Amino acid sequence: MAGRVRQAVADATIALIEADGALASSVIDSDVAIDLLRVKIEEDSFQMMALQSPVATDLRMLVAGLRMVSDLERMGDLAVHVAKIVQLRLPQSAAPQQVLPIISRMGSLAEVMVGRVEHIIAANDLDAARALDEVDEEMDRLRRESFTALLSAEWSHGVEPAVDTALLGRYYERIADHAVSVANRVIYLVTGEMPNADGQVS
Amino acid sequence: MAGRVRQAVADATIALIEADGALASSVIDSDVAIDLLRVKIEEDSFQMMALQSPVATDLRMLVAGLRMVSDLERMGDLAVHVAKIVQLRLPQSAAPQQVLPIISRMGSLAEVMVGRVEHIIAANDLDAARALDEVDEEMDRLRRESFTALLSAEWSHGVEPAVDTALLGRYYERIADHAVSVANRVIYLVTGEMPNADGQVS
Repeated sequence: MAGRVRQAVADATIALIEADGALASSVIDSDVAIDLLRVKIEEDSFQMMALQSPVATDLRMLVAGLRMVSDLERMGDLAVHVAKIVQLRLPQSAAPQQVLPIISRMGSLAEVMVGRVEHIIAANDLDAARALDEVDEEMDRLRRESFTALLSAEWSHGVEPAVDTALLGRYYERIADHAVSVANRVIYLVTGEMPNADGQVS
Repeated sequence: MAGRVRQAVADATIALIEADGALASSVIDSDVAIDLLRVKIEEDSFQMMALQSPVATDLRMLVAGLRMVSDLERMGDLAVHVAKIVQLRLPQSAAPQQVLPIISRMGSLAEVMVGRVEHIIAANDLDAARALDEVDEEMDRLRRESFTALLSAEWSHGVEPAVDTALLGRYYERIADHAVSVANRVIYLVTGEMPNADGQVS
């Protein structure tokens, strides 16, 4: 599921940068598969809870898994939001030239973060999980930078691209927040210690 | 917890409309209490799971409860986001005159929805839970209306208030989505049937 979300985030960003309507559509269409994976994982988890009455660590792992799939599904939805903004502005690019480098860097960073999440879940890699916070700070820095650009006197693209840029930045920032949230759940499962990052985490 | 979130949403909206910095600060400060309630409910739930090994309906209810508190905490965070935009623009109002009626209606609607959620959780009221979808459609309609206003040729407030309006609209829309999500979880717990609204719901 994390792999599919990573692909969706990567494709949405390419669609954005290249104003590629077909790729944007494919991001939107393939979100169904992510949603179905969530349903499947939930059903399996509930069945295990019902049939095997797991306790302690096993139960905690199942509950954490349910919440991770919520995060992952939501990240997929946010990739769809990016793709929908792409479609709205075709044949133009939704990311005006002036902020294209920032937006494109946010997109790559989001993809990297989801890729790390994929690895963190598979390998219980605590060092990678703890390091994700720093990557998230870079995302926050880029978002502030995008605001500085679109609110500056040099902004020449008008209202609509400014609004698009603000919303795109918000979507990427939220993808990053959910990635940190998944990483923190893994840390909690393995160590019992809950990182306290921005109230994003349970 | 739902009652506190309702208060936060209500206060954030008043702070926005009246450009009231003190009220905005109090929304931000009181979010700590909402976060602590979440932690408390989670700890109690995990303790019940560990000590009483609940099965079937009881376990399902505890798991649903964990996800409802995630939704509620997130709604509180979104009220904080509104309050922070208020603070950024003081002594001005962050909602320009031209969209104040729409934003103010979105704020009331969000408050009404959280109030309904409070009642739906307390009373397992399925009719109220099912009716929440319609209120959410009104929220979506208002959001579209705000975009029409800020992207029209008559928009005279420039880029910054347009970006604020777009983000405020996004925050209220997400509060409404989370309210529908909680209502759908109650429907699922009571009936076993999962409403399929916009992929917001598990």
